[in-house]
Amino acid sequence: MFSSILIANRGEIALRVARTCHELGIRTIVAHSTADRDSAAVRFADEAIQIGPAPAKDSYLNIPALVEAALATGAEAVHPGYGFLSEDRYFAEVCEAAGLVFIGPPAEVIGRLGDKAQARTIMSEVGLPVLPGSPETLDSAAEAKALADSIGYPVIIKAAAGGGGRGMGIARHGGEFMRVYGETRAHAQATFGDGRVYIERFCETARHVEIQILCDRYGNAVHLGERDCSVQRRHQKLVEETPAPGLPAELTAEMGAAAVRGALATGYVGAGTFEFIVDQDGAFHFMEINCRLQVEHPVTEMVTGIDLVREQIAVAAGRPLSFTQRDVVRTGAAVECRINTEDPARNFAPAPGTLTEFMVPGGPFTRVDTHGRPGWQVGPHYDSLLAKVIAWGPDREQALARMDRCLAEMRVEGPRVHTNTAFLREVLAHPLFQDGKHTTSLVDQMLTDGAPPESPHHHDKE
Amino acid sequence: MFSSILIANRGEIALRVARTCHELGIRTIVAHSTADRDSAAVRFADEAIQIGPAPAKDSYLNIPALVEAALATGAEAVHPGYGFLSEDRYFAEVCEAAGLVFIGPPAEVIGRLGDKAQARTIMSEVGLPVLPGSPETLDSAAEAKALADSIGYPVIIKAAAGGGGRGMGIARHGGEFMRVYGETRAHAQATFGDGRVYIERFCETARHVEIQILCDRYGNAVHLGERDCSVQRRHQKLVEETPAPGLPAELTAEMGAAAVRGALATGYVGAGTFEFIVDQDGAFHFMEINCRLQVEHPVTEMVTGIDLVREQIAVAAGRPLSFTQRDVVRTGAAVECRINTEDPARNFAPAPGTLTEFMVPGGPFTRVDTHGRPGWQVGPHYDSLLAKVIAWGPDREQALARMDRCLAEMRVEGPRVHTNTAFLREVLAHPLFQDGKHTTSLVDQMLTDGAPPESPHHHDKE
Repeated sequence: MFSSILIANRGEIALRVARTCHELGIRTIVAHSTADRDSAAVRFADEAIQIGPAPAKDSYLNIPALVEAALATGAEAVHPGYGFLSEDRYFAEVCEAAGLVFIGPPAEVIGRLGDKAQARTIMSEVGLPVLPGSPETLDSAAEAKALADSIGYPVIIKAAAGGGGRGMGIARHGGEFMRVYGETRAHAQATFGDGRVYIERFCETARHVEIQILCDRYGNAVHLGERDCSVQRRHQKLVEETPAPGLPAELTAEMGAAAVRGALATGYVGAGTFEFIVDQDGAFHFMEINCRLQVEHPVTEMVTGIDLVREQIAVAAGRPLSFTQRDVVRTGAAVECRINTEDPARNFAPAPGTLTEFMVPGGPFTRVDTHGRPGWQVGPHYDSLLAKVIAWGPDREQALARMDRCLAEMRVEGPRVHTNTAFLREVLAHPLFQDGKHTTSLVDQMLTDGAPPESPHHHDKE
Repeated sequence: MFSSILIANRGEIALRVARTCHELGIRTIVAHSTADRDSAAVRFADEAIQIGPAPAKDSYLNIPALVEAALATGAEAVHPGYGFLSEDRYFAEVCEAAGLVFIGPPAEVIGRLGDKAQARTIMSEVGLPVLPGSPETLDSAAEAKALADSIGYPVIIKAAAGGGGRGMGIARHGGEFMRVYGETRAHAQATFGDGRVYIERFCETARHVEIQILCDRYGNAVHLGERDCSVQRRHQKLVEETPAPGLPAELTAEMGAAAVRGALATGYVGAGTFEFIVDQDGAFHFMEINCRLQVEHPVTEMVTGIDLVREQIAVAAGRPLSFTQRDVVRTGAAVECRINTEDPARNFAPAPGTLTEFMVPGGPFTRVDTHGRPGWQVGPHYDSLLAKVIAWGPDREQALARMDRCLAEMRVEGPRVHTNTAFLREVLAHPLFQDGKHTTSLVDQMLTDGAPPESPHHHDKE
C-alpha cells in the first residue's frame, strides 16, 4: 500500500479522497491554488503544497507544477479526483514517467476511451449497442449533413474530445444542421484544442443511466449497479439515484454485464463509469466512458457499502479486487442532490460569495460531502458545486422523503450568495419525478412551462 | 398515522426525532425551556412552545406544562426521547388520560419494569439468567449484609428506582458493606424519592451488552441485535458498538432470543433495550430494561437500515410491525462515540460555554447527531452530551479507522469549552479495545494507570 498520496484536486472531492486516505493511514498531501489555501481539504490534509494562482490553467491544470509538488513532497501516488486532469492521458503519462502512480486507468486506455468517437467504435465492435451515427469522426460538412439526413432528425453532434456533458449541439431538423455543426466544431476547437466531431441520433425522451465499474490489473472486473442521472440542466446532472426507477432489473443487469464486457475488452483498470441512454422503448445504447471517479459515486457507496476511493487506491497499488460480482449486494435506494452556488432566478448564473451561515443536514441515513463552512469564500474561479447531499432509504419513497427533509434543513447564507436548493425541492416534488417517469428533458420542461423559479434565498420559516 | 407529535425533550435527540417526523410528514412541535429557545430542534421544528425556565424540574420534567403544551398545540402524540420523563409511568399515564398517545410502552409496563428489582424477578421467572442476588428489595440492613456475605464480594447495591447507571454502589468486601449500603439507600431516597435497594454479585471484568427490541401491540416482537457498551466511565457509556467484538454469534443470538421472550412475557410495546452483563466465563445475565429509545440507537440503525424512531411512531400509531425477525439483516460494524463538553484534565468536570467554532466530520459511512452549531451556547443546566459521532464499516477494523478519522476532523472551540474528543481517541487506540478484549473497567484502568489525559483543547495541526 502507498505511504503517501498527493491529491491533485480541490473542493469536496479533495476532502472526500483525503478522508479515505486518512482511514488507510496514508499520508495525504493536498496540492492547492492560492485561492484554496485555507480550504477544508488543506485543513484536514497532513500536508499542503501551493501549486499556483487561482485560475485552473495555472494550478489544477498545470501538469509540471503538480508533478513537481508530488516529487517535492515525496508522494508515491497521485489521485486526480474528477474534472481538471482526471481524464488527461498526458498527465497520467507524465506521472508514470516521474515514477508516480496515477490513480486511474493506464494512460493509453484513457487516450483510447477519451476519444469519444473511438470509444463508440470500440464498444460497438465488442457488441455493445450504440445509437445510429457516424462510425468515426467526420471531416467534411457535406458528408456530415448527408449522414444526418440518413439517420433522421434530431441528431446530436458531439466533440470527440468532449464528454461529461460538454461539447455537444443538437440539430432538430436539416435546416439548422450546418449551423449547429459549425458551432459545435468551433466550440470543440476552442475548448479542447480538437475540432473533431461525430454524430448520433438524439433521443428526446430518454433516461441517462450509467454503470459503475471497478477493475484490477489482473483481468477482474465487476460492476456496482446503475445510477440514473436523468435530472439534468443543460447536460449537467442535478439529481442522481440508484436504483434507476421504473427500469426492469433485467435491463440494468444486462447493462452491467455489457459494461463489464466493455471494460475487459479495453484493459480497463480502476473505477470507471459507462454512460448509457435508455430510450423510450426501453432499449439501451452506449454513450461514453468516464475514466475516473464520478461526482455521483456516493449513491453507489450508500447502497453497496463499498468505499470506491478505497478500492481505487487498492487497485492502483496493485492489489487484486477483494470481492467478486457475487459479493456485490445492493440494499435500498439512494439519491444525491448537487447544491450549487447559482441563482435560479437569474437563469442559474453563478452566485458566489462569502458564506456567513452554513449548516448542512444530518441524521440517520444521510451524508453530506462538502468543502463549505461558515466564513468560506466561494470564489468565481471554479465550478459552482458547493455540497452534495445524499440520502438513503430502504426504498425510493423513503429516500426521497429523507432528501426533502435534508434540503429543508440546509442553510447557506451570505451576501449575494444563492443556491439551487429550493429548485431541487421543486424537482423532487414534480409528479413525473415522484413517479420515476421523468426523462432528461424534465428540468428544461419545468423551466419552460413554469414561472421562473423563485430565488431560494429565503428560509421556510422566516 | 399521527398528523402531529410533540417532542418532550431537547438537544440532539429532539432534533433526531424531529427529522424522522419531517420525513413522515408529521407536524412537529418542540416543547422547550427558555434556555433552549434558539436550539437546533426549535429551529427545525414546524412549531415550538416554551414550557418553562431552564432547570429541568421547571420544564422538561414538568408534566402539567408538557401536557398543556401538547393540548394547546393540538398534538396527537408525545415523543419523550431519552432521559427526563421518557421512563416515567406517571407521565405516560397523564398523557393517556389527556387523550395523547405516549410513544413508548404502556404506563403499566413502564411501572413494572421501571422497578429494577421487580424487573429482575419477572425476568428470572420467565427463564432469563440473573446474577445471584436478592429476589426483591431489602428492608433491613442486617438481612442485606447476610445476603451479601452469602453471595460473596464484591456485590453491587442498586436502587430499585435507578437505572441507566445511576443509583449504584459497590461493596468490595464485607467491611465496607454497611457504609455503601447506607450511602446507596440515602442517595436513592434523595434522587428518586425511593430508597429501596437490591443486591447482586458484581462482575469486575465484564462486558456490558444490550439487545435492542421492537414490539407491536399484537404480540409481535423482534430484536435488532446487540450493542456492546463496555466503554464506560462511572457507569456512563462513552463508546458503543455493534456487533459486540469477540463474542460468539451464538451467544448474542441467544441473548436476542431471551430479550424477545422477556418482552413478550411483559406485554412490551415499542422500542426497548434489554441490558445484560456478559461475565468473564462468557455467560450472560439480565440486568435491566430501558423502556425507551437509547442514546446509542444509531449503531443499530447503521447496520440494519431500520429507522428506530420511525418504527416507534408506527407501533405507537397502532400499526403492526412491518417486518419479522427473519427480515432483520445486519451488515458490517458500527461504532458510536459520545462527544461531551467536559474536561478530562479536570476529572471530566463539565466545561460548557459558547461555541465559537463547531465543525463535525462527514463523508462516507458516517453520521453525526448533534444540536451544536457555531454560536450555540452550551449551558450548565443539562447533561454534557454535545454530539454523537457514528461510523460504519464492512468490518470492525474499518469502522474504527473511520471513527478515528472522524474524531480527528471534529472541531469544537470556545472560551472555556473542552471536550473529551482526544480522550476518546486514546480509548479507541488502546490495545485492549483494538483487540476487542476490554471490559467495563477499561476507562477506570486507563485513568488510574496513565498520566491524567491531556486537555483535548489543542488541534493536531496547530
